[in-house]
Amino acid sequence: MDNRQIVLARRPVGQVDDSTTTLVSSPRPLCGEGEALIKVAMLSIDPTIRTWMNDAPGYLPPIELGAVIRGSGTGLVVESRSERYHVGEVVFGMTGWQEWVLATDEVRFSVVPQGMGLDLATVMNVLGVTGITAFFGLVEVGQMKEGDVVVVSGAAGATGSVAGQIAKARGAAKVVGIAGGPEKCAEVVEKYGFDECLDYRQGGLSQRLVESCPKGVDLYFDNVGGEILDDVLTNVAMHARVVLCGAISQYNSTGSRRGIENTSMLIMRRGRMEGFIVLDYASRFVEAQTELATMVLAGTLHHQEHILHGLEKAPEALNLLFSGGNHGKTLVVVDDSVQLG
Amino acid sequence: MDNRQIVLARRPVGQVDDSTTTLVSSPRPLCGEGEALIKVAMLSIDPTIRTWMNDAPGYLPPIELGAVIRGSGTGLVVESRSERYHVGEVVFGMTGWQEWVLATDEVRFSVVPQGMGLDLATVMNVLGVTGITAFFGLVEVGQMKEGDVVVVSGAAGATGSVAGQIAKARGAAKVVGIAGGPEKCAEVVEKYGFDECLDYRQGGLSQRLVESCPKGVDLYFDNVGGEILDDVLTNVAMHARVVLCGAISQYNSTGSRRGIENTSMLIMRRGRMEGFIVLDYASRFVEAQTELATMVLAGTLHHQEHILHGLEKAPEALNLLFSGGNHGKTLVVVDDSVQLG
Repeated sequence: MDNRQIVLARRPVGQVDDSTTTLVSSPRPLCGEGEALIKVAMLSIDPTIRTWMNDAPGYLPPIELGAVIRGSGTGLVVESRSERYHVGEVVFGMTGWQEWVLATDEVRFSVVPQGMGLDLATVMNVLGVTGITAFFGLVEVGQMKEGDVVVVSGAAGATGSVAGQIAKARGAAKVVGIAGGPEKCAEVVEKYGFDECLDYRQGGLSQRLVESCPKGVDLYFDNVGGEILDDVLTNVAMHARVVLCGAISQYNSTGSRRGIENTSMLIMRRGRMEGFIVLDYASRFVEAQTELATMVLAGTLHHQEHILHGLEKAPEALNLLFSGGNHGKTLVVVDDSVQLG
Repeated sequence: MDNRQIVLARRPVGQVDDSTTTLVSSPRPLCGEGEALIKVAMLSIDPTIRTWMNDAPGYLPPIELGAVIRGSGTGLVVESRSERYHVGEVVFGMTGWQEWVLATDEVRFSVVPQGMGLDLATVMNVLGVTGITAFFGLVEVGQMKEGDVVVVSGAAGATGSVAGQIAKARGAAKVVGIAGGPEKCAEVVEKYGFDECLDYRQGGLSQRLVESCPKGVDLYFDNVGGEILDDVLTNVAMHARVVLCGAISQYNSTGSRRGIENTSMLIMRRGRMEGFIVLDYASRFVEAQTELATMVLAGTLHHQEHILHGLEKAPEALNLLFSGGNHGKTLVVVDDSVQLG
């Protein structure tokens, strides 16, 4: 039996293209003692995957040439020789871009809770790394307080849309999104309930932020980096917190990164800029999932999934994140027979 | 009786020059009810004064054209119609660049403690804003912990040299300075007791930091901003703290500020970059002064003052900070007859 896999053929310069990855076929792995065989169901397509393709220092080592593309996903346990996993369970972990994967002592998976009446795509979006990132970024790193003026970039995106909704639910005075194009901006306001959304493609963002947030920005949840980060920095309020969640505008850049010119505003306004990686909060995921699940089940957390079908679509799906062609959390279905009970 | 004053004649572009300020003569102010007349003794020359000369947003409004240059200093109370001040006291506050100033309800001064056996220059350096800035930047903003690898830029400067010595005294694993030129670097190690000092003028700073701090920088006390900040960011350890105290490399810049390219290292290493203004800690100054005075009196805090004589030397003194021509805390003596008891 085969295991189709997408491997890294060449490190991309700028955008991922046909030469970056190759679809190969390997034998399906055999389940050894203490292991479990997982049939991959759905891949989570995240911007961070692009950073792992570079031969550059990061919070995880680069993906090696010839290796399966690293990424998280869900799958079904079809065989188990481990006490940790049971056949029929749906599990979440670093599946990689392939059809089959082994759970081992090194590569561990967590069981996806069933019986909540939520489908797999919803769980992978809101209760997965995406929603959890929004939660800890806002609540822990950003130390969000009631009455804060909160700005979120990538506001139509999977993490940004959830971050803004948590901010509203927790009593922000105002939540302003930043997104690209009128369609996305409308979605951010109408679907996700932000108070306002600024289209960065219109230019003059710095000045429009002054008008939207005349008393300054208390908390900025940054998913994009670059010029937008600089524009928000010019508008930070006293004791502002800038949460660096991602810098998607920079991941495909081929030259040097765009320099941030307004860091001295952090002195003027006694601001704090802090980066984080959601994996640091692994031991506290349940805390975020509980609040997020409660909101989803109450119908107060709106979300959207952008689903592509077929393992071979994964590279295309990754590029959608950078072109802005996705609407909501981007997922790739590898096997649609796996469903949550 | 006259009051010689230095006023802002023209906003400087780049370096302060002869056209920036004018020496004028006004009548000595009259001491009204509730006020005190202060004879200015010594001016503290600080980089932040240069930022107030620009017509740009800051933590204080710009100095108006025609107004006396804002700055802190000490002086002697020669007349008092206020219960707050007593004739013969030496006081500290915003004297401005002039010979006489009134203490009013709006412009308040604090009394300089006497009888410690310290001269006025030492008190203005180590127990003044300079030393206090080093203390709170390191201890509060930087949350310095025993065992930290600490890097300080502007290490031969007034604030930097004190920050490094406090770090050593509080148990840093290693304290590395960054300064300009071999002479200053030698001084940082030999006089101020840093473990090492890197000369940024030699180039390759980023790589030399890797060699000096192979496990990364836990705490960076930044006085300079710009390229040096970027070089240190590439070397931050996990959960590093970057304290933005000043950005002297940028204050005279005429074009756009140099952009910081490596902010995404704060994501990779879960780092925090935070700015502060020492005035925010005004209610806690005594805490810093107590620790600093104890060190000075014990002979464990080395310091140096660079003293110029004559009010008219103040603009030249300010430029020394940017050319690096000063050694230690830069002070201008306006009236050398005022001494501490």
